[in-house]
Amino acid sequence: MDIRHLINIGDVSLEWWESLYSLCREIMADPHAFSDSCRGRVMASLFFEPSTRTCFSFQTAMMRLGGSVFGFSDPSSTSASKGETLADTIRMVSAYSDVIVMRHPSEGAAMAASLYSEVPLINAGDGGHMHPTQTLTDLTTISALRGGIGDMTVGLCGDLKNGRTVHSLVLALSKFPNISYCLISPRELAMPDYMLDFMRKNGQRFIEVTSLESSLPQLDILYMTRIQRERFIDPLEYERLKGVYVLTRRKLDRAKPDLLIMHPLPRVDEIAQDVDDDPRAVYFEQARYGMFIRMALLYQMCQKPRIKPAVPESAGEHLCRNPVCITQKNPYLPVLTKEDDGLCCAYCDKKILTI
Amino acid sequence: MDIRHLINIGDVSLEWWESLYSLCREIMADPHAFSDSCRGRVMASLFFEPSTRTCFSFQTAMMRLGGSVFGFSDPSSTSASKGETLADTIRMVSAYSDVIVMRHPSEGAAMAASLYSEVPLINAGDGGHMHPTQTLTDLTTISALRGGIGDMTVGLCGDLKNGRTVHSLVLALSKFPNISYCLISPRELAMPDYMLDFMRKNGQRFIEVTSLESSLPQLDILYMTRIQRERFIDPLEYERLKGVYVLTRRKLDRAKPDLLIMHPLPRVDEIAQDVDDDPRAVYFEQARYGMFIRMALLYQMCQKPRIKPAVPESAGEHLCRNPVCITQKNPYLPVLTKEDDGLCCAYCDKKILTI
Amino acid sequence: MDIRHLINIGDVSLEWWESLYSLCREIMADPHAFSDSCRGRVMASLFFEPSTRTCFSFQTAMMRLGGSVFGFSDPSSTSASKGETLADTIRMVSAYSDVIVMRHPSEGAAMAASLYSEVPLINAGDGGHMHPTQTLTDLTTISALRGGIGDMTVGLCGDLKNGRTVHSLVLALSKFPNISYCLISPRELAMPDYMLDFMRKNGQRFIEVTSLESSLPQLDILYMTRIQRERFIDPLEYERLKGVYVLTRRKLDRAKPDLLIMHPLPRVDEIAQDVDDDPRAVYFEQARYGMFIRMALLYQMCQKPRIKPAVPESAGEHLCRNPVCITQKNPYLPVLTKEDDGLCCAYCDKKILTI
Repeated sequence: MDIRHLINIGDVSLEWWESLYSLCREIMADPHAFSDSCRGRVMASLFFEPSTRTCFSFQTAMMRLGGSVFGFSDPSSTSASKGETLADTIRMVSAYSDVIVMRHPSEGAAMAASLYSEVPLINAGDGGHMHPTQTLTDLTTISALRGGIGDMTVGLCGDLKNGRTVHSLVLALSKFPNISYCLISPRELAMPDYMLDFMRKNGQRFIEVTSLESSLPQLDILYMTRIQRERFIDPLEYERLKGVYVLTRRKLDRAKPDLLIMHPLPRVDEIAQDVDDDPRAVYFEQARYGMFIRMALLYQMCQKPRIKPAVPESAGEHLCRNPVCITQKNPYLPVLTKEDDGLCCAYCDKKILTI
Repeated sequence: MDIRHLINIGDVSLEWWESLYSLCREIMADPHAFSDSCRGRVMASLFFEPSTRTCFSFQTAMMRLGGSVFGFSDPSSTSASKGETLADTIRMVSAYSDVIVMRHPSEGAAMAASLYSEVPLINAGDGGHMHPTQTLTDLTTISALRGGIGDMTVGLCGDLKNGRTVHSLVLALSKFPNISYCLISPRELAMPDYMLDFMRKNGQRFIEVTSLESSLPQLDILYMTRIQRERFIDPLEYERLKGVYVLTRRKLDRAKPDLLIMHPLPRVDEIAQDVDDDPRAVYFEQARYGMFIRMALLYQMCQKPRIKPAVPESAGEHLCRNPVCITQKNPYLPVLTKEDDGLCCAYCDKKILTI
Repeated sequence: MDIRHLINIGDVSLEWWESLYSLCREIMADPHAFSDSCRGRVMASLFFEPSTRTCFSFQTAMMRLGGSVFGFSDPSSTSASKGETLADTIRMVSAYSDVIVMRHPSEGAAMAASLYSEVPLINAGDGGHMHPTQTLTDLTTISALRGGIGDMTVGLCGDLKNGRTVHSLVLALSKFPNISYCLISPRELAMPDYMLDFMRKNGQRFIEVTSLESSLPQLDILYMTRIQRERFIDPLEYERLKGVYVLTRRKLDRAKPDLLIMHPLPRVDEIAQDVDDDPRAVYFEQARYGMFIRMALLYQMCQKPRIKPAVPESAGEHLCRNPVCITQKNPYLPVLTKEDDGLCCAYCDKKILTI
C-alpha cells in the first residue's frame, strides 16, 4: 500500500512502515550516501503554530538529503494575516515546492490542506488530532534499540487523557504482536474510554495504575509525558500528585537493565536530570532517530510526481460539531465523512451526531 | 542592452526580455538541468516589509538553481533598528552575498540601495513605486499560455488608481504589438490621468467602463485586482460596489473559451472560489511561472562580477517632495534627477516642482 | 594545539591561528574550490539574542562551503520559552547538527553549552564576555592588508571600558611581536585596570589619551568603536564629548597613508560618511574578511567526529557572584573553576571571592 500524503498514523499499513524503516536503516548505516538524494528539491515548512523541535527535525532531515527548505515558523508571518484561505496558501506554496510539511492548530487541517496540494503533504501536527511523524520516531527508536517491535510491556506515564502522542503510539503499536500496556496516570488524566475500547477491540492487554514506582520493574519501555498544571481543576491536587509521576534515578533502581526510557521532548521536570546519564535514558537519541526516519519519509515523498489535485464534491452542509475542527472556519471545504463505528468527520475523525 | 540591477520595469528593453524569457523556457523544459547553476552562490533576501509570496518565490527560485538564501523577512529583525543606514546595511550584505533581492516600503529604495552594492540588486517592490518581477511574472504567464504577447484585448479590473501592478503591466505591454485595454473600475478608483496620457502617447487603445460583466465577452485576458475597503471615503459606496467587481462562474458564461484569468495573489474575495476549477483560471499557474522567470533572472544576475560601486556625486540639495521617497529619511543619498517630461527624482520617478 | 570548541579567544595558540589563517588564505584565493567542502553538513545557528551581522556572516560562510543552516535568530522563537533548559536545547540541537554557532546574553553560556554538545560549538558572543570570531575577523583583516601582524601602533578609540571587542583584540594581539597601543577615550570610558595590568604584564607599551585628532598621525591601525549615550551618567557630558571621538575626513589629513581604519560595525555616527570613500577605510572589507575566516573555522570544525559528551563532576556549591553569569539561572550546571591570578569561574572568567 502506498500513500501520497502522510496525514493520519492510522492510514499506514505494516508493509508501508516496514519499507520505510528499511530505507531508514540504510540511511543510518551511511548517511553521506544520501546527501544528494533530494538535490534540487525544495521542502515547504509551514508552521501555523510554533514547534521548534519538529521544525528543526524536518529541516535538518531535508538538508541532509541535499534539499532546501523555505517557509515560516510561526503564524504571524503568514499571508493568512492578509485574509488568505488555507486552500489558497497551499495552492501557492505547492506551486513553489516539492513536498509540504505543515503544522496547524486546527484538527483536520492537514487533511484539508492535502486536498489542494499539487505535491505530497506531511502532517507535522494538526491540533490535538494527529502527529504521525512523532509516532514514526517512537517506532524507529524502539526498532533500532530493541531490534524489532513486539513482545514487550510498555508503560505509558503521565497525562494519558490529553496526550495525543501516547494515543497515536497505541494506535500504531496495535499492528505489532504481543504488546501489553501499563497505563500509569492520575485518575483525572486516565486514558479515555474510546482508547480503552480500541485496545480491547484489538485484543491488547492493559492495566491501569496510579503509581509509577511500583510499575517500573515490569516495563521494557517507559514512555514519559508531561503533566501540565493547567489540566487540573484543583491546583492543590496537582501539587499533591506531581511528584508521583517524576522519574528519578532512585526510582529506576528496580527497573530492568534493558529498559528504554522515552520522552517526546521537551521535558520540563517529569524526568530528573540525574536520570540523563543512565544508559537506559534514550530520549535524546530518540530525537536523532526522529531526524533519520524523517529523512526516509522525505526521500520517499519527493519521488512522487506533481499532480493537479481534484477537490472532491461536497456532500452538503457541514455537520461536524468539533469546535476546533478545520471545517469550522473554512466553510468552503467540501463536506467529507467516513464510517468508523458510526459516521465521522473525515477531517478531524470526530463522530458526527445525526438526529 | 544589459542591465546590472533590475530596479524599474521601464528600464528593460524588448531584447532583454526576449533573452530572459528564452532562458526561462529552457528552464521550464528541464528544471533539473539547472539545479547546479548557482551552486556556491548566495542570495540575500532583504524584506524591509513582509511579503510572503514574493519572498517564497525568490527563495525557491534560488534554491532550485542550487544556490543558498539568507536574510530577513520583516523589518523588526534588521540592524536598521540599531540605527544603521540603508547604505551601510547594503554594503555589509553585499560583502556576504552574490545577489540581493530587496523589498522596502519607501519609493526609490531599490535605486538608492543599488548605489552601494557590490553585487546586482533586484527590486522586489519599493513602496507603491515598482515591482518589476511581478510584471515579468505576468509577461511570462501570457507568453507561455498564449504562445506570445500581442494581438489581444486585456481587461484590467478593480482598483486601477492605486494598483502598482496594473500600472507596471501597462508600461511593459506598451512594447508589444496590437494590445487594447478595457479599464474596468469604479469611478473613484479609475486609472490615473498620467497613465492614460502614457497610453495615448504610446498609441494604445483603451476604453473605460464600470461593469465587469458586460466587458467580459471581449477579453482575451482578464487581470483582476483587489478593491480594498479602506480606499473608499464612503464605506456605503464600498458596500454598494464591491459585488460588481467580483468574478463568479456565472459571469464567465459568456467569456471567450481561451480567456486567461490572472491575479497577482493573494486574492481575498474578488474571485469566487467556484471559478478556481475553471480551466481559464490561471492565477495559481501564474505563481509557478513567477518562480521560473525569477530562476532565469537570478541565473543571469549571478553571472555578473562583483564591483566596487562608485557612488555618484550629489547635485546639491534634495528637491524631491514625495513624502514616501527614500530620500526623505536618508539625507546622505546623492541628489539625482532625470528628465522624463520634466525634471524627475531619479529614485522615485516623481516630478520635481522647480520654482 | 587543537581545540574542539571555540569559546574563548584566550584559549587559542599562535600555532592554531596560523594554521587557521593559512586555510583562510587558500579559501580567499579560490573560494569556489571550497564550495563542496561541507556538503551534507548542517550548522545550527542559535541566536538567543539578535545580531544580524554575526548571524549573516556565519550563515553565508557555511553556505559558501556547500553546507546548510537552521536555527533561530531571536529568543522569542526558542523552546526555552516552554521551560526547556539550555542543556536540553543543546542536546537536542546537537542531535540534528554537525556544528553549533551560539550567541547568548549570559556570560559563560558558550562554555556551559559546550558541555552538553555532541558536536563542536562556536561562541558567537556570550554577553559582555567573549566574541572570539570578531577578534579572528580583526586579525584576518590586519594580516591580509598589512601582510602580517606586528611592528605597529594600534589606536583603540571610543568606549574602552565596556568594549568587549577591544579587550579581546588586545588579548589576541599580545601573542604578536612589537605592538604598541594608543588608548583613546573619555576618562569615564577608559580601559579598565585589569586590562592595563594584563598589558603591563605582557610587556605591551601603551599610552592613554583623550584626543583622537592629535593621536592620529602616529597610528598604523585605528580601531573605532561606538560611544553609547546610555554609558554616561551625565547626558551633558556625552553631548560635550561625542564630537571628539567622531572620525571625519578632515581629521584624517595628517594620518599615515597606509593607515587601516577598522570598526566592528554597525557604525552609527562615530565615523562620518565622508570617510567611507577614503581608501584607508577598510571596515566594509573587514566584514568580508570575517566571512572568509569563518569559512575556515567552520571547515575545520566540521571535520571533527561526533562524541558523547561527558559532563564533568561538580565541585560543590556555585560560588560565582557575577549576576550575568550563566550559572545564576542554570543551577544544574556543574561547578567548575580555574586558576587565573586567583580562583575564577570557569564559565564567565570572573574572580570568585572566597572568604
